Amino acid sequence: MTAEAPVSAEGQKALPVALDAMGGDHGAAPNVEGAVLAARAGVSVLLVGDRVKLHAELGKHAGSATLPIEVVEATDVIGMDEHASDVRRRTQASINVATRLVKEGRASAAVSMGHSGATMASALLTLGRIPGVERPAILAHLPARGGFTTMLDVGANADVKASYLAQWARLASVYLRVVEDRENPTVGLLSIGEEDHKGNALVLEAHGLLRELHGRGVNFHGNIEGRDVFMGTTDIVLTDGFTGNVVLKLAEGEAKVLFGWVKEALSSTLKSKLGGLLVRGSLRSLADRMDPSTYGASLLIGVKGLAFIGHGSADARAVKNALLRAARAHDAKLVPRLEAAFQEQSSLN
Amino acid sequence: MTAEAPVSAEGQKALPVALDAMGGDHGAAPNVEGAVLAARAGVSVLLVGDRVKLHAELGKHAGSATLPIEVVEATDVIGMDEHASDVRRRTQASINVATRLVKEGRASAAVSMGHSGATMASALLTLGRIPGVERPAILAHLPARGGFTTMLDVGANADVKASYLAQWARLASVYLRVVEDRENPTVGLLSIGEEDHKGNALVLEAHGLLRELHGRGVNFHGNIEGRDVFMGTTDIVLTDGFTGNVVLKLAEGEAKVLFGWVKEALSSTLKSKLGGLLVRGSLRSLADRMDPSTYGASLLIGVKGLAFIGHGSADARAVKNALLRAARAHDAKLVPRLEAAFQEQSSLN
Repeated sequence: MTAEAPVSAEGQKALPVALDAMGGDHGAAPNVEGAVLAARAGVSVLLVGDRVKLHAELGKHAGSATLPIEVVEATDVIGMDEHASDVRRRTQASINVATRLVKEGRASAAVSMGHSGATMASALLTLGRIPGVERPAILAHLPARGGFTTMLDVGANADVKASYLAQWARLASVYLRVVEDRENPTVGLLSIGEEDHKGNALVLEAHGLLRELHGRGVNFHGNIEGRDVFMGTTDIVLTDGFTGNVVLKLAEGEAKVLFGWVKEALSSTLKSKLGGLLVRGSLRSLADRMDPSTYGASLLIGVKGLAFIGHGSADARAVKNALLRAARAHDAKLVPRLEAAFQEQSSLN
Repeated sequence: MTAEAPVSAEGQKALPVALDAMGGDHGAAPNVEGAVLAARAGVSVLLVGDRVKLHAELGKHAGSATLPIEVVEATDVIGMDEHASDVRRRTQASINVATRLVKEGRASAAVSMGHSGATMASALLTLGRIPGVERPAILAHLPARGGFTTMLDVGANADVKASYLAQWARLASVYLRVVEDRENPTVGLLSIGEEDHKGNALVLEAHGLLRELHGRGVNFHGNIEGRDVFMGTTDIVLTDGFTGNVVLKLAEGEAKVLFGWVKEALSSTLKSKLGGLLVRGSLRSLADRMDPSTYGASLLIGVKGLAFIGHGSADARAVKNALLRAARAHDAKLVPRLEAAFQEQSSLN
């Protein structure tokens, strides 16, 4: 955005990422700390929110004045308990200011740990949809054998049509190729049996559409089951926003409860307590891997611009990782490449 | 099933449980071994299948001749890859013989680790539905904080109506009271937010029906999220058979992958290897708790008789636990009490 902005790999001036710095359960503190961490890692950030509060938070971090961080004033914030529909009239809300910065080309992406519904609504209203995409979806990463699984939709659309699923398969395939360097990523349609004829009415219809798309930007593996998500059977897990949201929250809840039980087991006897001390370090790195903070935030894919939606409970590490992911998606020219893919496809039809 | 009607621990003759002894991925061996274990624990069993094979398997278990186990001939078996619809014409298939034994009052329950769809179809065709129940559901237990969670439907109905969910809430509430001694069990409707207005169209409609049932045989807690399943927030998790099946298989897959990672972590360094030896025993009992074999099989609830459906991969321990659960459900007079609850309710309307 400015003269002191870092420069990207291709020699262009890198745009800063706009962070809704007031969003989330814990207000400005983790947002500002995450921005400081990201800036130290080379990503420039626009902190959007209450100027006085944000400068006060920045002041707590030694050397932050020399980092590529600027504050952009927003006089309002949509609270976690308020209505997503407030986005329309509260134009000065921090999330709206952040998405406008993207729309105006002054920021590369908008990131918010605040109200998920408001972030979605603001991104959709301000940035609009990529032509050919009926509904944007939320794309999230989950830990899985061999690395991670990419799942969508994890909550933007509770009721969906088969055509949405087909479009999301194309969007996610481009995303993995462009941002995560996965060649020809496989797409699995989440169902209740691997056989083509198993599933609910939605899945049966989507299965047909995906078969048609196979080899045309989508590497369709076929139906997969719940157990395949953690097995990492396919790169992409395609599902409606109801099932996807249930799955995401179940996966997080189960990991939390299981690790709690492992901890209990490690302190149940004197022998296991002693053993527990020895294995603590190894288990901690595993717990980190399961921690949603590792992936920072989820991408709202299908809008004409980059928008990332994180957990309200995000800590500084999650904020930092979200900002790095946002910068990476922008460097990879994700949105123009999604637009191009949908343009090619429609010219084929 | 009236004249020689089933009976209880109150001094009457206990009916045997009919086991489809040919069903499952591993054929007769784990079924017969499981039956021997159950019989030693006091449950009498009818082994249904190929007489010669079953006697040969029984012969491998010392002292089995003195146990309350009988063989009932069935000349056919529906293989795991065959069609569930075959149930209609293949009247001599082991699963059909087993459900007929229940219908005729000669067995307390039918248990099968074989073809799930065939078991459901056979139970429904042979036993019929409880009046007032539109569709039976599969009810399963999952490990959760504080013990276990009861979830339904986990796969009988991929597309459902709100009225089914309301009926399942009533069925599962009776089940937990009668079989598991849970007073006034709470019912949570699986959704994508706790707020009443969040969910897909099905959940929104079901929410209204459940509000009306609250205090009339159903203790409706409200909407719950994916994370609540393992937290054990409610006794009962109510969902459609598509979401429930995905959740069940995801939960099993995740536990398997996580325990695999824990094992890896425990052998990553010399220090953690040493610690791993010390904690092995404690972790093994935790792994047992997560093992689906612990619960043996799932109950097909809503049919006019007891039918249990297990994993094709079931081992002898799973078969044994399924037989014990079946006997317990019969001793608790589950089916007559479900029928009574639905009769009362309809006379109220």
